[in-house]
Amino acid sequence: MVGMRGAYGGGGGYSNGNESQPLGGAAGAAGPMTTETSTEIVGMEVHKVAPPPPRSTLSKMKARVKETFFPDDPFRGFKGQPLGTQWLMAVKYLFPILDWVPGYSFSLFKSDLIAGLTIASLAIPQGISYAKLASLPPIIGLYSSFVPPMVYAVLGSSRDLAVGPVSIASLVMGSMLRDAVSPSGEPLLFLQLAFTSTFFAGLVQASLGILRLGFIIDFLSKATLVGFMAGAAIIVSLQQLKALLGIVHFTTQMGIVPVMASVFHHTKEWSWQTILMGVCFLVFLLAARHVSLRWPKLFWVSACAPLASVIISTLLVFLFKAQNHGISIIGQLKCGLNRPSWDKLLFDSTYLGLTMKTGLITGILSLTEGIAVGRTFASLKDYQVDGNKEMMAIGLMNVVGSCTSCYVTTGAFSRSAVNHNAGCKTAMSNVVMALTVMVTLLFLMPLFVYTPNVVLGAIIIAAVIGLIDLPAVYQIWKMDKMDFLVCVCAFAGVIFISVQEGLAIAVGLSVFRVLMQITRPKMMIQGKIKGTDIYRDLYQYKEAQRVPGILILAIEAPINFANSNYLNERIKRWIEEENSMQNKQTELHFVILDLSAVPAIDTSGIAFLTDIKKTIEKRGLELVLVNPTGEVMEKIQRANEAQNQFRSDCLYLTTEEAVASLSALAKMTKP
Amino acid sequence: MVGMRGAYGGGGGYSNGNESQPLGGAAGAAGPMTTETSTEIVGMEVHKVAPPPPRSTLSKMKARVKETFFPDDPFRGFKGQPLGTQWLMAVKYLFPILDWVPGYSFSLFKSDLIAGLTIASLAIPQGISYAKLASLPPIIGLYSSFVPPMVYAVLGSSRDLAVGPVSIASLVMGSMLRDAVSPSGEPLLFLQLAFTSTFFAGLVQASLGILRLGFIIDFLSKATLVGFMAGAAIIVSLQQLKALLGIVHFTTQMGIVPVMASVFHHTKEWSWQTILMGVCFLVFLLAARHVSLRWPKLFWVSACAPLASVIISTLLVFLFKAQNHGISIIGQLKCGLNRPSWDKLLFDSTYLGLTMKTGLITGILSLTEGIAVGRTFASLKDYQVDGNKEMMAIGLMNVVGSCTSCYVTTGAFSRSAVNHNAGCKTAMSNVVMALTVMVTLLFLMPLFVYTPNVVLGAIIIAAVIGLIDLPAVYQIWKMDKMDFLVCVCAFAGVIFISVQEGLAIAVGLSVFRVLMQITRPKMMIQGKIKGTDIYRDLYQYKEAQRVPGILILAIEAPINFANSNYLNERIKRWIEEENSMQNKQTELHFVILDLSAVPAIDTSGIAFLTDIKKTIEKRGLELVLVNPTGEVMEKIQRANEAQNQFRSDCLYLTTEEAVASLSALAKMTKP
Repeated sequence: MVGMRGAYGGGGGYSNGNESQPLGGAAGAAGPMTTETSTEIVGMEVHKVAPPPPRSTLSKMKARVKETFFPDDPFRGFKGQPLGTQWLMAVKYLFPILDWVPGYSFSLFKSDLIAGLTIASLAIPQGISYAKLASLPPIIGLYSSFVPPMVYAVLGSSRDLAVGPVSIASLVMGSMLRDAVSPSGEPLLFLQLAFTSTFFAGLVQASLGILRLGFIIDFLSKATLVGFMAGAAIIVSLQQLKALLGIVHFTTQMGIVPVMASVFHHTKEWSWQTILMGVCFLVFLLAARHVSLRWPKLFWVSACAPLASVIISTLLVFLFKAQNHGISIIGQLKCGLNRPSWDKLLFDSTYLGLTMKTGLITGILSLTEGIAVGRTFASLKDYQVDGNKEMMAIGLMNVVGSCTSCYVTTGAFSRSAVNHNAGCKTAMSNVVMALTVMVTLLFLMPLFVYTPNVVLGAIIIAAVIGLIDLPAVYQIWKMDKMDFLVCVCAFAGVIFISVQEGLAIAVGLSVFRVLMQITRPKMMIQGKIKGTDIYRDLYQYKEAQRVPGILILAIEAPINFANSNYLNERIKRWIEEENSMQNKQTELHFVILDLSAVPAIDTSGIAFLTDIKKTIEKRGLELVLVNPTGEVMEKIQRANEAQNQFRSDCLYLTTEEAVASLSALAKMTKP
Repeated sequence: MVGMRGAYGGGGGYSNGNESQPLGGAAGAAGPMTTETSTEIVGMEVHKVAPPPPRSTLSKMKARVKETFFPDDPFRGFKGQPLGTQWLMAVKYLFPILDWVPGYSFSLFKSDLIAGLTIASLAIPQGISYAKLASLPPIIGLYSSFVPPMVYAVLGSSRDLAVGPVSIASLVMGSMLRDAVSPSGEPLLFLQLAFTSTFFAGLVQASLGILRLGFIIDFLSKATLVGFMAGAAIIVSLQQLKALLGIVHFTTQMGIVPVMASVFHHTKEWSWQTILMGVCFLVFLLAARHVSLRWPKLFWVSACAPLASVIISTLLVFLFKAQNHGISIIGQLKCGLNRPSWDKLLFDSTYLGLTMKTGLITGILSLTEGIAVGRTFASLKDYQVDGNKEMMAIGLMNVVGSCTSCYVTTGAFSRSAVNHNAGCKTAMSNVVMALTVMVTLLFLMPLFVYTPNVVLGAIIIAAVIGLIDLPAVYQIWKMDKMDFLVCVCAFAGVIFISVQEGLAIAVGLSVFRVLMQITRPKMMIQGKIKGTDIYRDLYQYKEAQRVPGILILAIEAPINFANSNYLNERIKRWIEEENSMQNKQTELHFVILDLSAVPAIDTSGIAFLTDIKKTIEKRGLELVLVNPTGEVMEKIQRANEAQNQFRSDCLYLTTEEAVASLSALAKMTKP
């Protein structure tokens, strides 16, 4: 079979317009094939597979590096501009504030003022609550709602992000640091570790941006995040049982089992006054949330409810002297703005590992939230947010924060949504919020003395309840069972093992799934759709029919070390099955491997191709390849330099042309 | 643009044979599309994209599990056989010896006898040498060449594998155990740990086979192995400098730096007699190797050279009493066969972690070698070796070995090649070798008293020098620069850091590369090849031309969480570029996304598709999808159930049909 080509190698016809070229052949006729793109065989035009234009290794590397790290080509606007303009553009790139400040108007400010005041009313109680969640003094939460939003307003490119402390990062930082240091036993050391972790978190975030490694956060898939967030919300809520029930001796562990054990072990400490107050405010907050969800125009109801709760509960405590009846209160808070804290950063080797790890995890988690929020609202208003640039902004904001008594901050989902609904136009709303917090810090701190802790617990629960996204879980279940598994693993891992390990398990599972798609690539047997020259999956298209004597296989994955053994054995088995299936009349003669969907191939892959070709030829069949794309064609050519195995007579541009010429060939070789 | 379809929704023509169906449209005409497969629009036939036939989640899961773990369908021959035959086949599957013993003949035995004696002459000196490499008593090497080959002969399905200790596994086991226990200080404990590690290695190997996780060894790509082997060969050779130079106080470290430091720090211990003897035998062995490489028929020259060296050197030492002149000798070895060692297995918690880790790494490494050797020779003689079955055989062999005073064994590359060249026909050659080793163990041990250690060092160097495969390195360099980088990393990691870490780095890099292919998937802009209906990459095919007003993009990767953000931004940028490039006459109207090469999609991917469709429509363009395959089409359908976004009027079977109907549409909507 294989040697028969030479016999008619010189007998090709002439296609219209293109110079004829005998179709390959061992006789050496394949020599001067240069620029012709098609030949005619047995009255049919056959096109050649072209390699991509030659490029040096260096330029290929450059292109790949560019596509990997600069897919957004951030400086593409710079080209062809005069030097002065380029400088101006660079400064504007670094400080997006310069983009909108020159055109800023009073009407824009009016919108931003309203939005800023609205999110401030949310940020103050949440700031205090989240700081307590991280086992930090409540005032740190207010500090963190003052400096970082100002920094972000200068550096950030999102118009909707409302910056401040968030629940997940607070939870993770608190739980990781508590493992090593007791916040009540050594409060100063704990604070130092929190600032140092924040510093590292900022460093990680900024580095990811500068090194253009932003794609790393893409590995937290939506399914992972949905499961993780739901788990974290439950963990956070359970932690609030301490405040809601008024328990004094509470476990320091986070898992659902020890927390529930602790709750029911200390039933004697439950205080009915605290419980009553907590339940009332929780119901009030959840009702407000419900109202805002039902009628989106009433978004301000849920936005103002936390502040209202704080004010009302503080008044209640003050009037009834409830602190003497078992209700714990925040206590004295000092007036004054953030003090510098760079002298508190602790790079001692005892805690360096801990703070770096905490920084890494909280940094990546808060970055994921910030970037996702930014992207969501940018897509709603149809403007661009540069992910890597945002990472630099958020990172720098946290580095500055760590030097000014702030802990990890980012753009929060709930507050940004309020910001957006309140009609914010620019990052100025963050400045308004920061100034409001500043006024609070300077003058209003004494008012919080009587604020009961139980209301802070209720505020946290009402805030994190929104992280449990059941419709999304249902959607994932309906769409993709494997994604659902990832989601469930993240959830179960967080609530039963630990926050970090749950996340690690879910990410590992997602990556494993991607690897399995490569290790067991999709292959299909194609058939011809009646009356056309279209070849499609036999299984998917009932109207597709096998071509007698030809097995058409399409591979849909890069061919590499991870799957070349599998492909080798699977193809051999398919040929065996085909041989046992085809009746004697139409013996199998040819195997067509459609490489259209093979984007890349490595050395193991090339070895597989040469090996399978030899094996198939040993069995008296012939293998032809269809439509190898760029890189694959290039490597096949390079393999040909060593041993000329894939001559042009076994490379076709389309399946139809391959089938037509192979069928013609089969007829010619028949007696 | 988008709403225009309805206007001509009822005006389709009639195709030949198929009942006509108006082309989708918002007007609701898309309702009863059931079995028709094509419609005609503006005089052209348009085919429908069909989803694959519906299957339950369970049956899909089953199919996926089967394809993942049983791609070879090992029991496919069992179907439809009577129960008795099935039992016989199952027994034959477990004991491949039953396949060939019934038909075994004297002429086959003659071939196996010659091959067996040849590999025995290689196995005896190598067994002693490799045991020393693992810091074990030399006799353990001979024990390991006696029992495991017998076990393999019964269980193994390769006809060419010559079983015994190998250099890499010996090196790794020795180095890992030496880190915890000194072989000279606590020889019994060291031996116990070696047996226990062997037990775990066998357990790991058998488990991989039984759990059908054999694909895990595929992650050691060829590039990784080439680099790793070369590095290991150099490390092994450097270790032999102790024997070759006669140094007494040698470092216990493995890295190239400490070893060279140790060598030049102890120049006073160098013994010229040892060096002279070592160099002479090394030259002799390398010359023999060269002869066999040059003239493959003289394979027995290099096969017998080690034994000849041992005999000659032993005689020389005996005659000249060289042991008194600074040449160290093996010393007394006890006669007798393997003693049971199951009582020596140590599952003490102090060393459990170490032995399990050592077992895991040596198990996977030796398995990789054994399977690769088996596959290589099976492919040469065109018979099948079932990878998972082989793993069970090798694993069981090591478990039995660990109970009979053997350490890790597998099929060795060099000895199997000799076995093959010597004309072995069945696994009987292993039995012959084992019996020869048995005779040696029973009667000839006193002869080895005077064997100098230096000649063992020379034998090891001559054996491992073949692991440095420079032509393969050159081939990898030429074929794939990234694979070359992996290879170099494995090599540098092994010689500068440690054997395990070098391996881990290389595997990590290979996996990272695969992940990057997903994270930054290949996309191409397609154009139409003049005079055909073929659409191909514009960059690769100069004769392909853009279709005015239409941007045709093809994605070549599964769309998932790792790349959906990238794809979203990249496609938007491409549309911008296209818009700025297309001249005003042919404004961009349509974007065609060719999904032929997208094998799978997850929830993030579906979210990306709906999102990009909305974005594109916001810009006044229209998005159509071409040829979504099985799973992708299924998920698009499921997404449609929620919001009917991808109606049949934006799904086409081929790019040509999409282009033709979109062009017709554009003409109709023009004034």
